[in-house]
Amino acid sequence: MSFSSDLRPPEHQVAGHRASTEKLGPLVDGAGLFYKPLQAGDRGEHELAFYTAFSAHPAVSPRVRDAFFPRFYGTRLLPTPARPGGDPYPHIVLDDLLAGLPSPCVADVKIGACTWPPRSPDPYVTKCLAKDRETTSALLGFRVSGVRVAAAGQGGEVWRPDRSELKAMDAAGVRRVLRRYVSSCGGGGDGLDCALAAAVYGGEGGVLAQLRELKAWFEEQTLFHFYSASILLGYDANAASAPGGGGGGVRVKLVDFAHVDEGEGVIDHNFLGGLCSLIKFIGDIVAEASEKASSGPS
Amino acid sequence: MSFSSDLRPPEHQVAGHRASTEKLGPLVDGAGLFYKPLQAGDRGEHELAFYTAFSAHPAVSPRVRDAFFPRFYGTRLLPTPARPGGDPYPHIVLDDLLAGLPSPCVADVKIGACTWPPRSPDPYVTKCLAKDRETTSALLGFRVSGVRVAAAGQGGEVWRPDRSELKAMDAAGVRRVLRRYVSSCGGGGDGLDCALAAAVYGGEGGVLAQLRELKAWFEEQTLFHFYSASILLGYDANAASAPGGGGGGVRVKLVDFAHVDEGEGVIDHNFLGGLCSLIKFIGDIVAEASEKASSGPS
Repeated sequence: MSFSSDLRPPEHQVAGHRASTEKLGPLVDGAGLFYKPLQAGDRGEHELAFYTAFSAHPAVSPRVRDAFFPRFYGTRLLPTPARPGGDPYPHIVLDDLLAGLPSPCVADVKIGACTWPPRSPDPYVTKCLAKDRETTSALLGFRVSGVRVAAAGQGGEVWRPDRSELKAMDAAGVRRVLRRYVSSCGGGGDGLDCALAAAVYGGEGGVLAQLRELKAWFEEQTLFHFYSASILLGYDANAASAPGGGGGGVRVKLVDFAHVDEGEGVIDHNFLGGLCSLIKFIGDIVAEASEKASSGPS
Repeated sequence: MSFSSDLRPPEHQVAGHRASTEKLGPLVDGAGLFYKPLQAGDRGEHELAFYTAFSAHPAVSPRVRDAFFPRFYGTRLLPTPARPGGDPYPHIVLDDLLAGLPSPCVADVKIGACTWPPRSPDPYVTKCLAKDRETTSALLGFRVSGVRVAAAGQGGEVWRPDRSELKAMDAAGVRRVLRRYVSSCGGGGDGLDCALAAAVYGGEGGVLAQLRELKAWFEEQTLFHFYSASILLGYDANAASAPGGGGGGVRVKLVDFAHVDEGEGVIDHNFLGGLCSLIKFIGDIVAEASEKASSGPS
């Protein structure tokens, strides 16, 4: 591969196309930046228009922008082996959301029972609707699009179900994935101990607290409707497992804005409903883990 | 018409079929009871099964049941002129939700962007989806299915848009209806003054406070999914307009349970999303009215 300077496909990407000599895909520079190739058709332009509007929008508080969205640095033309003669191709430049996590545990959760904007053309609606009904989107208000769980320790085992496994997942499967995401056994073993639930999901800076803050924003904001966007969860397996190590750099970020719609004064009830459902799933795991902890080892 | 005793079609019904010699429709007895004929097909059985399960469910708090649902009194066979020979027909017996309101203002708001349970057969999905996209359901997460606004005073004007007008309503139209619902001018005039917004929507026992309590329940409850159910709003025009008259018997009740699904441990993200959207609409009207009040007459 011949990417310029230190550019390379992100090692721990869990969803979307992977960059190769045949395909465009995201790149990272190892210094904290993420380069997302502009998607084909009008999706890429649409996503770029969103980042441009959002990053300068006076009605979006800096707190929400910094806490829940990757920072946007404009676009950059990058030569890519996936194009004839390595022709330069436009990329959206963003924060690398997994930077600083040597042993990242990642989950990409696509939010919303409905993944198509209301004014979409019929064939697109039909296609998305079928997928929303086949996966857990319609039933749960979200689906897990990608996940990577690393066990703590040098060369710790990694669990990373493939796309077909995730697509076929039912509600019970989703619950298991969200438990496994915070279980110390990581990829190995069947007993999901949720040993990291308090550190990663619970506590002040934990996933649950961050999701609730995000929810409060979605109860009020009427600027954008985030169809087919994902919440990316990340933390570091080693840091989270270290005694007194805190949450291990827990992060909760929105990504994938190719289908964002204007809000026109109405809240994003579709995203909000799915977000509340995810909060309930994760809240249940935290409550269960805290009960187990207070009753001591059995 | 020859209904037994004092049974008659409710005077202020805003949605659904109206009872006549040709059609089955709900009846009231004037003493506080409402008789809903069992719907055809499996809908009626389904609604009855819901009322039976819900009214005895140990996990539903009495507070939620009493505050937000009509009380269920079983079924009763009633002779009806809509059937050959006045044949008796089974009716679900419920509280008459508009009892005690001499001059009722009523709104029937169907909640949820999606009105079909996820496991519905394809033709039903197609039919509902088309209606959800044609009306404001998909866009707002709810649609107004019926409304009646009475002006205060003896023989006050009544505004009651017909079904086709409601079906064609866009987001701006819904906002106008929700303003008109609390405007003193009622049916007449064009200036929607929202004079009753503070009394009906605002305050301790007002619509907004009740909707927020309902929302807290929906954030936790995983027993039922209320597809195609409505929130019925009611208050009395005269009482609300009387000086120091309080909210005029404001009520917020769930109705229409022919498509309720089991929750299976998942929250009703579809209803919750729509409910949050309705809360935002109504909250905006309350905020605007309170700003106007504090800045005084202009």
